[in-house]
Amino acid sequence: MKSFVSVHDAPDIPALLHRAQHYKQHPFTTQPGHQKTLINLFFNPSLRTRLSTEKAGHQLGFQVITMDMAGGWQLEFEDGAVMNLDKAEHVREAAGVLSQYCDVLAVRAFPSLTDREADYADRIINAFREYATVPVVSLESAIRHPLQSLADCMTIAQHSQHLRTRPKVVLTWAPHPRRLPQAVANSFAEWMLAWGEVDLVIANPEGFDLAEEFRAGAQVQHNQREALRDADFVYTKNWSSYDDYGATADLSDWIVDEEKMALTNNAYFMHCLPVRRNVVVSDGVLDGGRSLVLEQAGNRVWAAQAVLEGVICDM
Amino acid sequence: MKSFVSVHDAPDIPALLHRAQHYKQHPFTTQPGHQKTLINLFFNPSLRTRLSTEKAGHQLGFQVITMDMAGGWQLEFEDGAVMNLDKAEHVREAAGVLSQYCDVLAVRAFPSLTDREADYADRIINAFREYATVPVVSLESAIRHPLQSLADCMTIAQHSQHLRTRPKVVLTWAPHPRRLPQAVANSFAEWMLAWGEVDLVIANPEGFDLAEEFRAGAQVQHNQREALRDADFVYTKNWSSYDDYGATADLSDWIVDEEKMALTNNAYFMHCLPVRRNVVVSDGVLDGGRSLVLEQAGNRVWAAQAVLEGVICDM
Amino acid sequence: MKSFVSVHDAPDIPALLHRAQHYKQHPFTTQPGHQKTLINLFFNPSLRTRLSTEKAGHQLGFQVITMDMAGGWQLEFEDGAVMNLDKAEHVREAAGVLSQYCDVLAVRAFPSLTDREADYADRIINAFREYATVPVVSLESAIRHPLQSLADCMTIAQHSQHLRTRPKVVLTWAPHPRRLPQAVANSFAEWMLAWGEVDLVIANPEGFDLAEEFRAGAQVQHNQREALRDADFVYTKNWSSYDDYGATADLSDWIVDEEKMALTNNAYFMHCLPVRRNVVVSDGVLDGGRSLVLEQAGNRVWAAQAVLEGVICDM
Repeated sequence: MKSFVSVHDAPDIPALLHRAQHYKQHPFTTQPGHQKTLINLFFNPSLRTRLSTEKAGHQLGFQVITMDMAGGWQLEFEDGAVMNLDKAEHVREAAGVLSQYCDVLAVRAFPSLTDREADYADRIINAFREYATVPVVSLESAIRHPLQSLADCMTIAQHSQHLRTRPKVVLTWAPHPRRLPQAVANSFAEWMLAWGEVDLVIANPEGFDLAEEFRAGAQVQHNQREALRDADFVYTKNWSSYDDYGATADLSDWIVDEEKMALTNNAYFMHCLPVRRNVVVSDGVLDGGRSLVLEQAGNRVWAAQAVLEGVICDM
Repeated sequence: MKSFVSVHDAPDIPALLHRAQHYKQHPFTTQPGHQKTLINLFFNPSLRTRLSTEKAGHQLGFQVITMDMAGGWQLEFEDGAVMNLDKAEHVREAAGVLSQYCDVLAVRAFPSLTDREADYADRIINAFREYATVPVVSLESAIRHPLQSLADCMTIAQHSQHLRTRPKVVLTWAPHPRRLPQAVANSFAEWMLAWGEVDLVIANPEGFDLAEEFRAGAQVQHNQREALRDADFVYTKNWSSYDDYGATADLSDWIVDEEKMALTNNAYFMHCLPVRRNVVVSDGVLDGGRSLVLEQAGNRVWAAQAVLEGVICDM
Repeated sequence: MKSFVSVHDAPDIPALLHRAQHYKQHPFTTQPGHQKTLINLFFNPSLRTRLSTEKAGHQLGFQVITMDMAGGWQLEFEDGAVMNLDKAEHVREAAGVLSQYCDVLAVRAFPSLTDREADYADRIINAFREYATVPVVSLESAIRHPLQSLADCMTIAQHSQHLRTRPKVVLTWAPHPRRLPQAVANSFAEWMLAWGEVDLVIANPEGFDLAEEFRAGAQVQHNQREALRDADFVYTKNWSSYDDYGATADLSDWIVDEEKMALTNNAYFMHCLPVRRNVVVSDGVLDGGRSLVLEQAGNRVWAAQAVLEGVICDM
């Protein structure tokens, strides 16, 4: 891989899953990061992504440098701009300089949730990809979270082995008090469809359909209970509206609880965390024996190792 | 040790002191952290504790990841909470996830100084201890600072060797312009009493007695000059009131200066730093030949190495 | 070198340049930082300096700890102060403690731009130098940026080899919307003059002459076009006024553009970055084939390696 920003960068998903699974068994097996530097650049805060990527980098032998840019560093992205306002540096220089200080540049960006066109141009990650001379890895961008999706894919693969039939995976919208990006949902759908090993159903309220480019190929249902019937995996996540961009809705009956899970084929429960207990999901489901949320978070490390190896070795 | 939150976790104080002393001579002697990760989680800022623990971790071979959570990450601690307000994650998930990313989880928390019951339940550190599946090390909690106390113990042990009699250690309250936690004082008293190698006198103004659970076994005096008489070590520290919880007092005559030190048995002066010069202690005492403050700070590294080894090797 | 705060600390500039050039070819050639700790202390934010110094430290084998003090930690510098206000720690203790936690202490400070006398006393870096017991390295102080200057020197040396005559280097003031320190310009002038391998001309508007101590020995011109004539290197930088301390001026015609560069001897363009495009320099010059800005930034790593080796090995 030259970079890792979306599923389209992954030439062979099964091979990537295989490497991630290998690292889960043998974390220190190879040291492709020996005498190399990984820079993690955070334009907004992160806990899981930061820790799992740092750990992955260390385990591959990288020197890891994490930079928190939150609040500090305003980048100019426009060509030809007269930079006499608050933008201190153009992304051309920023990416050019950082490329000399590292062998892999990992970037975390975020959407405005107010300007859909700008968000879906995924400007920050794409500008770094354009101007950096080293591989760029997304630590979540405005519209995708591919390291999360790879870890989720890995988790589903591990728990599908006993199934006699092709797994039914339901990605369901759930309530949340705040306006959240579509990145995790977009990316999850994109990966499930590209992977091709599951049947994907997306359940969301009317007005909350994901962008066409991400949901094309999945079955979309606006009746959550119907969607959940016979599911093998229930992937739960809130996202704000794409159509009425950034809007949210007070639909507390979309919570995933024991009664809803009873409609499924004894499905596993999944969520990328952090999760609002008794808003998104009931305590009973989250703490129950079918919850995979901690395993998903754990798999983030192995997914990151596979991706970092992939870009540094151009596998 | 399974974890290190209070003196009660230390099965053998002399053995721990011995290991700390060993590391002071041979910092790189063992590498129990090889291919292991130490995460330091700071819910409030720290200088000495952060640097000494990071250095200790490195010297034991750990990969060290430090996360500053100040201002960023609101945790829910209540069971059954409906998380529709500002708390983004329950400590159950936080501790569960972090446990997958590290082999030792070190946590720095702090008191409210307004809600005594909540503070003395030491909720943050105890929740991590309950839900983490790896050893938890306190980098100061709401009511204790055991790594500081171990370093202090080590410092006293080193400077007691020439004494013919059992050392008299006076922990004295001193003035300060801000309201401070009781953590350092509580912990120091707890360690001195558990160690059993010194006679502990606590000198503080009326209304500033430490909580019964921490001072039981020590002699408490409200006359500083009387308390200091014949002291071998004067450990100086401000703390806010336990009884009138969080209150402070403008008692500048409790400063430790040359005249007060002249009452002692040529005592050593101790303080955990940072210290307000000419408020808590006079320049003359702090810069004098009997001041151990820098040595105390230096011993933080060796204390941390002994503790990290202790929890990772279950010594 | 005992420390590295100004050019006066460098006993032999050509030898230092030679080491930096050596590390550019062989980054991992020596490990003088093995089992040693480098602490980077930032009193104001930094991107290039932080990343290049961390990378340099890692490549020399140091354990690197970076502390961001911005907003957090108010130091007292006055002797005899009664510290009952907002300063929590005296630099004597801070430097004394930090010296026990590291083998090299690197410090980034900044000027007030309001109190010239205080700024030019360079209080923070000099206090650490006075009270630390380990070598102190400046990561930019109130009035100097010697690691930048060494990297600039290295860049000029590399691109001077083809010249038949002694290079003419023009340091030119340029417009900027904000009030900036004089540190980069002061330091650049100081190094060029001490190095002695170039003819230095400083071009700036009237009222923007650098302090006498930094410009003595250079030719100062107030006509930018005249100054640029036959230049081999054009080092561009804004600085606020030394005479009318901290004042700036709206002189957009001081921009460095293609028309101005046409006056030179096909000069290389230099800037320390970050740079305001089309304010300080035109896109055409910055993106043109004679721009050395990325190379300058890259050379920061090798300059830092040479300096860290220099202070740790007392070369």
